[in-house]
Amino acid sequence: MSKRHDRHVHLGLWLTFLDASAWRDPASRAEELNTLAPYVEVAEIGERAKFDALIRGDGLGLPLPAPDQAFAGSLEIVTLLAALAARTERIGLIGTASTTFSEPYNLARTLATLDHLSNGRVGWNIVTSVAGEEQFGYDEIPGHDARYERADEFIEVVSKLWASWEPGAVLIDRENGVFFDPDKIHRIDHEGKHFRVAGPLNIARPPQGRPVLVQAGDSETGRNFAARHAEVVFTAQNDIARARAFYDDVKARVRRQGRDETRVSILPGLVVTIGATEAEARELHERFLGQIDYERTRQNLESLLGGIDLSDVGLDEPVPRERLPQAAALTRQPGRAQIFLDLAGEEGATLRRLLQALGTSHGHGRVFGTPEQIAGHIERWAEAGAADGFAISPAQGLAGARALADEVVPILQDRGLFRREYTGRTLRDHLGLAPVW
Amino acid sequence: MSKRHDRHVHLGLWLTFLDASAWRDPASRAEELNTLAPYVEVAEIGERAKFDALIRGDGLGLPLPAPDQAFAGSLEIVTLLAALAARTERIGLIGTASTTFSEPYNLARTLATLDHLSNGRVGWNIVTSVAGEEQFGYDEIPGHDARYERADEFIEVVSKLWASWEPGAVLIDRENGVFFDPDKIHRIDHEGKHFRVAGPLNIARPPQGRPVLVQAGDSETGRNFAARHAEVVFTAQNDIARARAFYDDVKARVRRQGRDETRVSILPGLVVTIGATEAEARELHERFLGQIDYERTRQNLESLLGGIDLSDVGLDEPVPRERLPQAAALTRQPGRAQIFLDLAGEEGATLRRLLQALGTSHGHGRVFGTPEQIAGHIERWAEAGAADGFAISPAQGLAGARALADEVVPILQDRGLFRREYTGRTLRDHLGLAPVW
Repeated sequence: MSKRHDRHVHLGLWLTFLDASAWRDPASRAEELNTLAPYVEVAEIGERAKFDALIRGDGLGLPLPAPDQAFAGSLEIVTLLAALAARTERIGLIGTASTTFSEPYNLARTLATLDHLSNGRVGWNIVTSVAGEEQFGYDEIPGHDARYERADEFIEVVSKLWASWEPGAVLIDRENGVFFDPDKIHRIDHEGKHFRVAGPLNIARPPQGRPVLVQAGDSETGRNFAARHAEVVFTAQNDIARARAFYDDVKARVRRQGRDETRVSILPGLVVTIGATEAEARELHERFLGQIDYERTRQNLESLLGGIDLSDVGLDEPVPRERLPQAAALTRQPGRAQIFLDLAGEEGATLRRLLQALGTSHGHGRVFGTPEQIAGHIERWAEAGAADGFAISPAQGLAGARALADEVVPILQDRGLFRREYTGRTLRDHLGLAPVW
Repeated sequence: MSKRHDRHVHLGLWLTFLDASAWRDPASRAEELNTLAPYVEVAEIGERAKFDALIRGDGLGLPLPAPDQAFAGSLEIVTLLAALAARTERIGLIGTASTTFSEPYNLARTLATLDHLSNGRVGWNIVTSVAGEEQFGYDEIPGHDARYERADEFIEVVSKLWASWEPGAVLIDRENGVFFDPDKIHRIDHEGKHFRVAGPLNIARPPQGRPVLVQAGDSETGRNFAARHAEVVFTAQNDIARARAFYDDVKARVRRQGRDETRVSILPGLVVTIGATEAEARELHERFLGQIDYERTRQNLESLLGGIDLSDVGLDEPVPRERLPQAAALTRQPGRAQIFLDLAGEEGATLRRLLQALGTSHGHGRVFGTPEQIAGHIERWAEAGAADGFAISPAQGLAGARALADEVVPILQDRGLFRREYTGRTLRDHLGLAPVW
C-alpha cells in the first residue's frame, strides 16, 4: 500500500505508558511515576511527532486488598495537564473528569482555566464513572441511565457557563477603569433536575469557546450520548469488522442528531509493540504476555462481567456460556463487558485469550510488528472506514513512544496519512473543528 | 534600626498584582491576564527573591450587574499553580480552595497531585467561602458556624486520605510485578455528619506528607479554627497595636490546643507602593487613590456590612454609628467587616477613608515609601510581635514585584531578617515545619 492519501488520521498519544507491563521493564522510569519529568518527556515526544493530543484516563478508587498494580498512583489528570500545558506549545491536552462525582461550576472553572493557560488546547473526556461511589457518600453507584441523564444536564450547564461571556466582553478600558462589559456577561439561571446554577462563570470565555468534548461510550446509552455531544469518540475495538460496524452506527446516530458526521472523530484505542523486525516485536509481545498476573486479571474479568465466578475454569478451557451475563444487565461498563462477551463467543476462545486481552490492553486493539506493519495497521483501519485515527498506547513505555514518533509517524507522513507540521494552534484546529462561539 | 536579627520573616508574594488599580497602569499586562506568561514572570521574580511562596485567593462568583472589575477573570488557582509548578523549582505554591463547595476526595486528589508535581511545595489556603451558593444549588449560603463545622470534618477527611498510604507502600518490585504493598495502604472508612468516604486515596502519599494548611479567619470561630489546624495564618491588619493583639490571641489559642505556637506563622496582608523617594511613592499612592470608583466601592462596603444603605452619606462625612451592624450578626466575613467597623469608629474617620481602605487593599495594611521605609515597616511589625512575616501584594503590579525583589528584599537580607538562599526544598522546609508522616 503506497498510495498517497488525501485525508489525515488523528492521533492521540495515550499516557498509559507506565501502566500494564511497561513499568516492569528494567529501563522504565517507574520510580518517577509521581513526578513531572517522565510526563514532560512523553509530551515532548508527542509534540515533536505532531500528535493531535495527549490523552489520559482517570479513576476514583483503589480497590483493596488486590489493587490493580497497573494504575498505582494515578495523578489527577487535569492538574497534571495544567503542568504539561506550561511545558508544551501545540499539542492538545485531553483529560478525563467525571460528571457523576463533580460539580459543573467547579469543573467549568477548571477546564476554562486550562483552556486559557494552554491557549486553547483542551479536550474533556467526559466519563460518568464506573467506580468511586464509596468516596462520595453513596451506598451504590447511580445506575447507568441515571448517570447518563445527569451527564446530559451537566454538559448543558457547563456549556452555558462557558458561553456566559459574549465575544467582546473583555474591554480593558484603562482610561475609564472598566475591565469588562457587564452587559455582555450573563447569568445562566439554570434550573434542572440535577442542578441549579445561577452563573455567570467568573472566568472569561475560553479560547476555544468550549473545550473539545470527548467521550467513550460503547453501550446503547453511551452511543446516543456520544451522538449528541461528542466531537471525539474513543472506543475499544479489537476487530476491524466490528470496529466498522461501530463506526457506521455512531456516525449514523450523529447524522440523526442533525450534526455533521465529519466533525466527529472516532478513535479506537490501540496498544502497539514495535520491533526492528517482526520477530523482535513478537518476542517483546510474548514477554508482556508472560508478565500477566492471571489470577488478578481473572478477578478483574469476573468483576467486569458482573461478579461471575471463573475460578474453576482452566486457562486453556473455554468460558462456559451459561455463566456469561447479558451486558445490558450490568451497571458498570456494559459496553466494555460486551467486548469480552464477544471474544468469549469466538471459535476456540479460551479463558487465557480473554485474560490476555484484558491484561495487556483492557480490550483495546493490540498490534505488534515493525514500524511498517504498525503504520499498515493504521492505514488499513482508516481506509476500511473503521477509524478516523487512534488513541495509541505504546506498550514499551517511553521507548515505545519514541519508536512511534521516530519510526511509525514518518511512514504515515510519507503516505500522506498524517500531518508533517501543525497548521493551527488549538486542539479544535488540529481536529478540524470550528471554535464554539 | 541596623541591628542584625536572628530570626527570619516569612514572605509570601500575593498574586493580586493585576487586581485593584494595577491593571490600569499603561504598562500593566492586563491583556495577558488569562494567559500563563505574566504569572510565570511574577513566579520567577518571587523565586529569585527567595520568597516562601506565591499566594492567591479564589472566588466562586461574579456579581452582576456591577462586578468588581478588579477580580475579572480570576483563573482557578490550583490549576494555575500546577502550571507554575512546572516552571519553578523552589518557591512554595499556596492556593485557595473551598471546603463548602467541593468534595474532600476530589480536593485531596488535586492537592496531592500538585504536591507530587511540585516536589512538596504546596500549601492549601482553606476557605469556607463567603459567596457561591447560587452556583451549587443552595438557596442560601450555609451559616458561618455550619460552614466551619463542615470545614473541620473536611480537613479530617482529607488528612486521613493523605495518610492512607504508609511510608514504604510504594515497592516497585519489577521482578515480582508488585508495584505497591496493599498491606501498607488503608481504607479510612470515615463516617461523619457531613461526609462518608471509604478511601484509600488512589494517589501515593504526597512528598510533604500533608500540604501546608493555611487559613485566614478573623472571627471568633475563624480564630479557633486556625488554632486547631493552621500552619500559616493570613490576616487583614492595618494597625500595629490591633495586629499585635490578634497575634497574641491566636498564638494563645494555638497553645491552648496543645500545639507549638512557633510552628504557626501569622502573616498579615500588606499592599506596598514603592518609590525611589518618599515623594514619588506618595504620588503613586495618590494616583491609585484617584482611580478608586467610589460608587462601586461604596456598594461593596454596604454589602460587606450586611446590606446597609450609605448612599446618602457624603464622602467626607463620618458613617452614622447607628447604621453599623454588629459583626457577629453577619453571615459572611464577620472578621473582615470588623476591620471596617473599627475604622469607622476611629476619630475623624470619613466614608472616604473607609472606601480608600476597601478600594486599595480590602482592609489589609497599606504602606508607601522608599525601599528602606518598606523594609522598616516589615522590621517594626516583626520586632513588635505583630507578625511572623507578610503576604505582600505590590500595588504597582509586576513593576512593583520587581522593586520588592530587587530593592526591598536585599535590605531585609542585610538586616538578617530574610534568607539569602533557600535552605530546603519543600514549603514545609521554608516555613520550618516538619513533614507530616
